[in-house]
Amino acid sequence: MRDVAVIGIGSTYFGKSEKSIIDLGLEACRKALKDAAVEPKQIQSFYLGNFVGEVLTGQSLIAAMVARGLGLGAIPATKVEGACASGGIALRQAILTVASGEADFALAAGVEKMSGVPTARVTTALAGSMDQELDGRVGLTFPGFFGISFGAYMHQYGIDERCIHQVAVKSRSNASNNPVCYLRKPVTVEEVMMSYPVAEPLRMFDCCPISDGAAAAVVCPADTAREYQRKPVKILSIAQTLGSTRISDLSGMVSFEATVQAAGQAYKQAGVGPWEIDVAELHDCFTIAEVIDSEDLGFFKRGEGAIAATMGETGINGKMPINPSGGLLSRGHPVGATGLAQIYEIVRQLRGEAYNQVPGAVTGLAHNLGGCGAVCTVSIMQKM
Amino acid sequence: MRDVAVIGIGSTYFGKSEKSIIDLGLEACRKALKDAAVEPKQIQSFYLGNFVGEVLTGQSLIAAMVARGLGLGAIPATKVEGACASGGIALRQAILTVASGEADFALAAGVEKMSGVPTARVTTALAGSMDQELDGRVGLTFPGFFGISFGAYMHQYGIDERCIHQVAVKSRSNASNNPVCYLRKPVTVEEVMMSYPVAEPLRMFDCCPISDGAAAAVVCPADTAREYQRKPVKILSIAQTLGSTRISDLSGMVSFEATVQAAGQAYKQAGVGPWEIDVAELHDCFTIAEVIDSEDLGFFKRGEGAIAATMGETGINGKMPINPSGGLLSRGHPVGATGLAQIYEIVRQLRGEAYNQVPGAVTGLAHNLGGCGAVCTVSIMQKM
Repeated sequence: MRDVAVIGIGSTYFGKSEKSIIDLGLEACRKALKDAAVEPKQIQSFYLGNFVGEVLTGQSLIAAMVARGLGLGAIPATKVEGACASGGIALRQAILTVASGEADFALAAGVEKMSGVPTARVTTALAGSMDQELDGRVGLTFPGFFGISFGAYMHQYGIDERCIHQVAVKSRSNASNNPVCYLRKPVTVEEVMMSYPVAEPLRMFDCCPISDGAAAAVVCPADTAREYQRKPVKILSIAQTLGSTRISDLSGMVSFEATVQAAGQAYKQAGVGPWEIDVAELHDCFTIAEVIDSEDLGFFKRGEGAIAATMGETGINGKMPINPSGGLLSRGHPVGATGLAQIYEIVRQLRGEAYNQVPGAVTGLAHNLGGCGAVCTVSIMQKM
Repeated sequence: MRDVAVIGIGSTYFGKSEKSIIDLGLEACRKALKDAAVEPKQIQSFYLGNFVGEVLTGQSLIAAMVARGLGLGAIPATKVEGACASGGIALRQAILTVASGEADFALAAGVEKMSGVPTARVTTALAGSMDQELDGRVGLTFPGFFGISFGAYMHQYGIDERCIHQVAVKSRSNASNNPVCYLRKPVTVEEVMMSYPVAEPLRMFDCCPISDGAAAAVVCPADTAREYQRKPVKILSIAQTLGSTRISDLSGMVSFEATVQAAGQAYKQAGVGPWEIDVAELHDCFTIAEVIDSEDLGFFKRGEGAIAATMGETGINGKMPINPSGGLLSRGHPVGATGLAQIYEIVRQLRGEAYNQVPGAVTGLAHNLGGCGAVCTVSIMQKM
């Protein structure tokens, strides 16, 4: 297998958009191709991550539509789906296709169009990634699931809820500097506590917003990357794992086995440990999720993630900067796009060009999680 | 890249089923694993083709659900979608994962659950793979699309409609021997002509039925295949291409560029020509589609496919046996499953175990097509 590097990245603004799902995908891909200085006809493989496109927009075959719109050749163009981890999966597929020698240039994209339909329909569509014969039947949704998780974490570790709400405060603060973000108004911990109760103790500001958006990346062999990009970023590893698909199958509500397994595989393959990661984009679909992720990935000990967030350790100048982009909570979470939006941010950090630049960042990590911890991707990247 | 072989196949009955989409997937996968004498924990990569699962059943994250139900490990489990070519794409991904050395055993499956919802909803869901900003907006559906194609073929080549209806007669005749098929009652060309007009000259019996079903295959390196399967089947090639995503983008209504390109790539990679194929399963979603496919794949000259079908050349004992299984027209077309149902039949043919065995079949071809000729897979297999 060959080493692979990211040579181009692109992202739309995340938030509400008038554009169609296809046009969002096209915008992100065109930006990534331009950033890589690669022509559409040079791309030999295309993967697009998307979750609820068919359900919310009525448009399927999205990968082919975007590929054709870009003017790609008679190449494989495939949509991949793994709920909210669809974007991470698309990146992994593109990387594998280059690593194996099947393609010299591959394009990965992620897209979602969620606005313009009633919120209840969006929530129902997202809940489709729960087991419909069990958890779905009893009416469980993701805010409900993470509300349970929030309460379980507080109870298990004796943590005050404000320590978890603090994640939202940090997120909004970072987002206030990042123009691609949806929610850019700073909030205080009191404002989070006073926001609408969604599934107590989970409040509105603990939840990522329903969003439209797309992001994309171009990859090629690491040894030729500098011909196309002054600041290529090398992929040290990317792991994808399967975990629990239903709540009764989880070993607990304060850890996701799929993340633990993917992190183990990714660290091993990259030959680096969590202490060597300079910056990370984690799947903070809810404040409590970032806390759990930060422990599952080994950045903090069990039960210490929320305290660390409160102490500022996950801030841009902290010991372990997490979600300097603003994360899902503030950038927005157009689900299929998120895995690639994380890559967009990490690559910018490792190029030294991020809006909230982590000083001297050399090694970065992205973590994308789908379902009730059912599918996870973890990728580790390094400045070349 | 290593040579890859199919060592296990499984299929459910195709037709109406009381089973859930997950249970259909599980049944086909368990049969394939049993046929391969491989344990679930040995599988290192899983791809599942599915098209309209989220829309029709409300269940997404289907790949992870099936993988978890099978007891697979913490491995990548990914749904792939390319409209009606989703199954062929899943097979290709599984093959690539073994060819590249990433996995020693990979499982590919396809599934669809289409019964139990109103026919209009199914037709609308399928039409989602047309460009919704253009063809979808004017109300075009797939029966309409292939009705236009049927008329164009008759007009362009001066062919009597009965020559095209004849494909349905052959299909039903084959299906009458095949217990996995949905429509097993033989029909005459007069009965096809007198069946309900769907999009004239396309009649009801020219159309594949809405169906439930799943099929699966296990692949491993060719050099170790005999340790698991007495009659392994070697993959000589598998190609996936992008073609037109909208009707205005087609060069005509009687050929699909994606098929022509995929066939060219697959023949070249396999080092065989169309004259060396002993048996083929083609994407006969409508009678006219089989005729067009048979020409696009080089089995017959332009304008001669329907005549060849009428002369019996595509029958089991004909010069070029096509769809001995009964094809999509009679076996049924649970869309995501079809690409793997074709592999199921070709592997049985090359093992010499098919219900409608083509005598002495050594080399087989499967052709899976999605959208308005937007995505195509062509695979060529050989007895080892």
